[in-house]
Amino acid sequence: MLEIRSTIPGDYSAIMETARQVGVFTAEEVRTVAEVLDLYLENAEQDEFLFISAEADGRVVGFACYGRVALTQKNYELNWIATAPDAARRGVAGALLHAVEEIARAHGARFLNLETSATSPYAPARAFYDRHGYAVVARLPDYYADGDDMLIYRKAL
Amino acid sequence: MLEIRSTIPGDYSAIMETARQVGVFTAEEVRTVAEVLDLYLENAEQDEFLFISAEADGRVVGFACYGRVALTQKNYELNWIATAPDAARRGVAGALLHAVEEIARAHGARFLNLETSATSPYAPARAFYDRHGYAVVARLPDYYADGDDMLIYRKAL
Repeated sequence: MLEIRSTIPGDYSAIMETARQVGVFTAEEVRTVAEVLDLYLENAEQDEFLFISAEADGRVVGFACYGRVALTQKNYELNWIATAPDAARRGVAGALLHAVEEIARAHGARFLNLETSATSPYAPARAFYDRHGYAVVARLPDYYADGDDMLIYRKAL
Repeated sequence: MLEIRSTIPGDYSAIMETARQVGVFTAEEVRTVAEVLDLYLENAEQDEFLFISAEADGRVVGFACYGRVALTQKNYELNWIATAPDAARRGVAGALLHAVEEIARAHGARFLNLETSATSPYAPARAFYDRHGYAVVARLPDYYADGDDMLIYRKAL
């Protein structure tokens, strides 16, 4: 059984372990996950960094971080989706993405945006977003680093 | 005489007055300027929201907010440039933009990015960025609101 629910303080270590295990996250990115997770857990008022967790058999096996894009009326952004490596290929990421889309739609969002890298380690992520109806709307050359372009994906909800 | 320098706590009220007077800022945007200005003044460690002020004859007549784009090696972002309406047409915005470019370059940035609206109230801003060598690299329809597209401008430093 897979359950998708709001992230609670008790999920903290499992989320950070997943962020470290997932392979494509840099050290700075892992620190950033921790910072925004702290922000989410400490400040229930804000809506720019929200988390949901995927729980299977009593264990947190994945998370998504998303939120409203400040200064816009219609846009939500997906910051990260990550699944514990030993829980891969069970539809965890798809269930998390679907839940983010449903929540965003319920809050009046018309679009879900996300940014990812055009490099080969991100090929599975790009294929995942392609499968789920996301289209590339922009490409910024050398954005993350030389030779590491940033792609903006978007889906109308 | 126009002086461009790091923003200090004493500039607070002049910056917020400029943000309120500039016309195109929404109420949420003015609140966001206050939030990131607080962050800048209270946390000297962070480099994602930095401010510079333009001072003329002992008075703050404009500001720019800019910073490093997290999770990238090469990118800086310009969040806002604003000039007090009664100090317009004296090259304040151009001097602030030039200073941001110089600082970003000195920190190893290869690109300065900015986002702005495609609506008519922002036509003077777009003309300003065009004149200073910025190119539109992406357009996201209905981003800020229905009929209010977002443009991403970029300049190689």
